[in-house]
Amino acid sequence: MTSQREIHVATSGRGTYDLTAQLQSAVKDAGVDVGLCNVFIRHTSASLMLCENADPAVMRDLETFMSRLAPDGDPAHTHTAEGPDDMPAHIRSILTHADLNLPVRNGRCDLGTWQGVFLWEHRHAPHQRKVTVTITG
Amino acid sequence: MTSQREIHVATSGRGTYDLTAQLQSAVKDAGVDVGLCNVFIRHTSASLMLCENADPAVMRDLETFMSRLAPDGDPAHTHTAEGPDDMPAHIRSILTHADLNLPVRNGRCDLGTWQGVFLWEHRHAPHQRKVTVTITG
Amino acid sequence: MTSQREIHVATSGRGTYDLTAQLQSAVKDAGVDVGLCNVFIRHTSASLMLCENADPAVMRDLETFMSRLAPDGDPAHTHTAEGPDDMPAHIRSILTHADLNLPVRNGRCDLGTWQGVFLWEHRHAPHQRKVTVTITG
Repeated sequence: MTSQREIHVATSGRGTYDLTAQLQSAVKDAGVDVGLCNVFIRHTSASLMLCENADPAVMRDLETFMSRLAPDGDPAHTHTAEGPDDMPAHIRSILTHADLNLPVRNGRCDLGTWQGVFLWEHRHAPHQRKVTVTITG
Repeated sequence: MTSQREIHVATSGRGTYDLTAQLQSAVKDAGVDVGLCNVFIRHTSASLMLCENADPAVMRDLETFMSRLAPDGDPAHTHTAEGPDDMPAHIRSILTHADLNLPVRNGRCDLGTWQGVFLWEHRHAPHQRKVTVTITG
Repeated sequence: MTSQREIHVATSGRGTYDLTAQLQSAVKDAGVDVGLCNVFIRHTSASLMLCENADPAVMRDLETFMSRLAPDGDPAHTHTAEGPDDMPAHIRSILTHADLNLPVRNGRCDLGTWQGVFLWEHRHAPHQRKVTVTITG
């Protein structure tokens, strides 16, 4: 059995957005007891990650890390048509994930206590992001 | 329903190789309308990524980024049997992806407009690379 | 057909732990000939990776690379409640993988000759880690 839905996320610019509740709701609606939940983002300048869900300082520190690793306006970049955060957004997306595949158990995504699923918007401007959720079991 | 095939990619050395058309063709042949397409590379010195498919400058900038992050001939490396690009190839593979899992919808991989699937060869010498494609639905 | 089991890994602190044999055994027990094996770690300070399985120097060099990229005790970190390796463990987890999805062929994970599946413990203290294995086919 395969069911699929699209989640739309309106971001307000660079930062992380918690998708966990929406995913758990999709799995519940799918009525799958044991299986898998594939989460896929249809963009190359925003990405997905599983991360600690309790302390907001984790997200701030991740942002600091990535801003240092792939700084906006890096003079080495030649793909700059959309501005100084264009190429860094691609780099940050490649270093994290476009797809996550979560086990479903007892009718829900079987995440660890401290795991949340986050969309990471890498552009500074607000964007409309589309995430496809496919549940099999 | 599960179908599986192997794609062979003859690389001409370090660089990116677009697999998108071959994957869409495999999905079409599988006759799956809604499901998932797993792409898996059977190597540890070449990898997979989803990336912007329009401007070649993106690939050049990614190469610049990775060459700076994990430089060939880094004196810190002790695994150097196959040359100065041996250990950097492993590092670059781990920071990107050995597997990608793409939703299938309406009989094709449901990628975003600007998303392409690329094999990233990290060795300088040409290699024969094997990619397993598994389609379920 | 979907089967699921949990693997428990008692780590002795930072380092890599080979899970390949346990995964192959799980696939064998599942009796799936062609399909997929999802491996998922339920933590945010330990991760999974596919890596070269022959030369221990690869793991040492990866550790050197990551320790340089995300050093313990980085003064930029504000999430430090659990010590100097707390935030680096989250960063290292995000740059590698919480899930791996391996093709099953002829009743086993169809890995390349040099590929092994490793749990990477990023904390210095020993931990009990849980990995969920879901096999479909």
